[in-house]
Order: sequence, then structure tokens, then C-alpha cells
Amino acid sequence: MMSEHTVAAYDKELGTLGRNIAEMGGLAEKMLSDALDALMAMDLDLARAVVACDPRLDALQRQVEEFAILTIARRQPMAVDLREIVAAIRVSGDLERVGDLAKNIAKRTLKLADVPRIPRAAIGLKHMGDLALLQLKDVLDAYATRDIERARDVWTRDSELDALEDSVFRDLLTFMMEDPRNISFCTHLLFCSKNIERAGDHATNIAETVYYLVTGTNLPVDRPKGGSSIMTSDV
Amino acid sequence: MMSEHTVAAYDKELGTLGRNIAEMGGLAEKMLSDALDALMAMDLDLARAVVACDPRLDALQRQVEEFAILTIARRQPMAVDLREIVAAIRVSGDLERVGDLAKNIAKRTLKLADVPRIPRAAIGLKHMGDLALLQLKDVLDAYATRDIERARDVWTRDSELDALEDSVFRDLLTFMMEDPRNISFCTHLLFCSKNIERAGDHATNIAETVYYLVTGTNLPVDRPKGGSSIMTSDV
Repeated sequence: MMSEHTVAAYDKELGTLGRNIAEMGGLAEKMLSDALDALMAMDLDLARAVVACDPRLDALQRQVEEFAILTIARRQPMAVDLREIVAAIRVSGDLERVGDLAKNIAKRTLKLADVPRIPRAAIGLKHMGDLALLQLKDVLDAYATRDIERARDVWTRDSELDALEDSVFRDLLTFMMEDPRNISFCTHLLFCSKNIERAGDHATNIAETVYYLVTGTNLPVDRPKGGSSIMTSDV
Repeated sequence: MMSEHTVAAYDKELGTLGRNIAEMGGLAEKMLSDALDALMAMDLDLARAVVACDPRLDALQRQVEEFAILTIARRQPMAVDLREIVAAIRVSGDLERVGDLAKNIAKRTLKLADVPRIPRAAIGLKHMGDLALLQLKDVLDAYATRDIERARDVWTRDSELDALEDSVFRDLLTFMMEDPRNISFCTHLLFCSKNIERAGDHATNIAETVYYLVTGTNLPVDRPKGGSSIMTSDV
């Protein structure tokens, strides 16, 4: 049983965790958004800026993890309090991965500078990126407000992103078969589309964490998957 | 300060964590090895078996995470004892990801059944797979024996896998440009090679965790990277 003093100190610690997660969320969202803009506009400076952001996100994750573990050890929280901290650890892990994926897109953009572009090939990626960003924004709001309905929406909508990646994959393959000179550019876009789809998967993971945090139970393991083709793999 | 009784109970809990991690390690290694064999031999039954293994690995990870958190809350361990548990959480996370990557390769193998194969295109992947499996085996041994030198070797050798993926990428692009009929098969191999390279990254993460576990400090953030091309992205 915690004393009032302990409870106050504990609330303060949860507040610190919450602020760190909020900063991580804002940073991950900005990195992904900037990485997609950089890819579409071939903005190399912006791409470099995204890459430069990643260490900050990594450091924040380490900080959240260490602080969370120490809080558990100090306060011995139980039930919902413990879930708060476990959720913080999980969400920070997913946000760090989103940052990695944004960094990958940015790195690819830097390497693509000298590769001839096929603008029409990038259109589908733009749609995927917009959807992934919406998923990320919604799930961060759901986490901040403990809104399980909103979390469930994100969780369900992931199938749209999978289906979209599926069609982007087929389009890019078609461009490559049309003209071998398209192969290099389109291959890199294929990897970017996979990175975007995986960023969406992390938004879905966060949705599952919000559900666990609020209800103490997990969503079904198999969520609805869109697209039936090879490209709709989970990772 | 723990009583003798508590220490005994605590050691028992650490033992349970260790056994769960060992089971996860064996399972992840087998899944990756089987997934690569299935891809090389187009063995669809083996590929299905790999996919079927994944839920067990996911469940084990959840189990390790929950048990670790409860142990921290119950025992309030400090310093090295706390590192033991944090390390278990991290390693189980990396092993679960390796299983996901193996599952992706297996799923791709199932979809590749009807795609015309270019055997020579798969040779590079075989080398990548062998190296990734060696990395995984070595780092699991390093974790089991708390061997930081062995962990450091794994950490350093990751650059070889990156370099290998780099050359596999170039070869596959060449095959695609030679003949558009190679594009579909080679594109899927590109994703498999990325999955293998990322499995190697998780072995490297585990190496970093072993180092942290034993020394209480982290290895430098930037590890040596092989290959300088676009394909050597971190994720």
C-alpha cells in the first residue's frame, strides 16, 4: 500500500513518462512526415534533417525504458498502475521503430538523388504515407486520451494500408517490366512502401497497447488483413 | 536488502526467465533456419511449419515480459540484478522479431510457389542466411555464457552481412535488368535478403544487450557498417 507521499511522487513519475512519450510521438510523427516529403520532393536537406533526428528519438526511448523500470522497482505498482508503465515501455519501443523507418526512407532518398525518377511511380506511396501518418496521429491521440474506440479504429484500418501496399507493389512491378530503366528507382520505392506499411504496423501495435492499458486484456491476435497477395506480410 | 528466502525465490525467478529465453532462442534459430531451407528448396510444407511456429514465440515473449515486470515489482532488484531482467526483456523482444522475419520469408516462399525461379539468383541469399544464422547462434551462446568478447565479435561481424546484402542487391538488380521475366522472382528475393539482414541486426542488438548486461555500460552507438550503398540501411 503506498503512502500519500509515495503516491504523489509516483504520479509525478508517471507524468514524466507521459511527457517523454508525448515528445517521442511528436518527433516520430515529424520524422515520418518529413521523410515522406523529402522523398516526394527529393529534398536532400530535409532527408538529412530526418536522419539527424533519429539519435534523439533513440535516446528518449532508452530514457523511458530505464525510468519506467526504476519506477517499477521503486514503487512496486500493481494492476492498472503497472499497466501504465508497461504501456509506456511498449509505446516508446514502437515510436523508436517508426523513427528508424522514417530514417530509412530518408537515407534512401539521399541515395536516390542520382537515380532517374518516374514521378507517376511515386503517387501510390504518397497515399500510403498519408494513411500511415493519419494512423500514427490517431493512435497517439488515442493513447493520450485513453480512447479505446479510437484505438480500435486504428487497429481495424491497418488492413487498408496493407491493401494499398499490395496495389503499390503491383504497380511498381508493372513499371519495372515496362522499361528496365525503371527498375532501380522502383526497387527503392518498393522498400520505401514496405517501410511505410511497417510504420502503420507500429501504429497498430500502439493501438493494441492502448487497449491493453485501458482494459487489461489484449485484442485478438489476428487482426483483419487487407490484400491477399505476397506483399501483405506482417513485417 | 533481500532476505535469504527472497534471494532464493528471486534466483528461481531468474532461472525461469533464463529457460524461457533459451526456448525462445532455440525456436527463433529453428524458424530462421527452416525458413531459409524452405525458400531454397521451395518446400511449402516446411514454410507452413515456420508460419505455424510464430504464435508460440509471440506467446513466450509476452510471458517473459510480464514475468520480468512482475519480478521487478516484487523484488525491487537493483544494479546487476535489475540488468538481468532488463536484458531478458530486450533479448526476448529481439528474438520475437527474428521469428517475425523468418515468418515473412516463409510466407513469401508460399507465394513464390507459382513464380518462375532463377536458381542462380538465390545463391547470394544462401550465403546471407548462413551468416545470419551463425550470428544468431553465436550471440545466443554469448548471452548464455555472458561472454562479452564473443558478443563483441558478433557486433563487429554485422558489417559483413550488410556488405553481403549490398552485393546481393546489385546482383538481383542485374538479373532483373537482363530479363523482365526475372523481375517478379528477384523482387521477392530482395525482400527476403532485407529480412535476413534485419535478423542479423537483431543478433547485433542482442550482442549490445549482453555487453550492457555484463558491463553495465553500452557499446558505442555507431557500429562499423559494411557496404556504402543504399542497401545498408539499419532496418
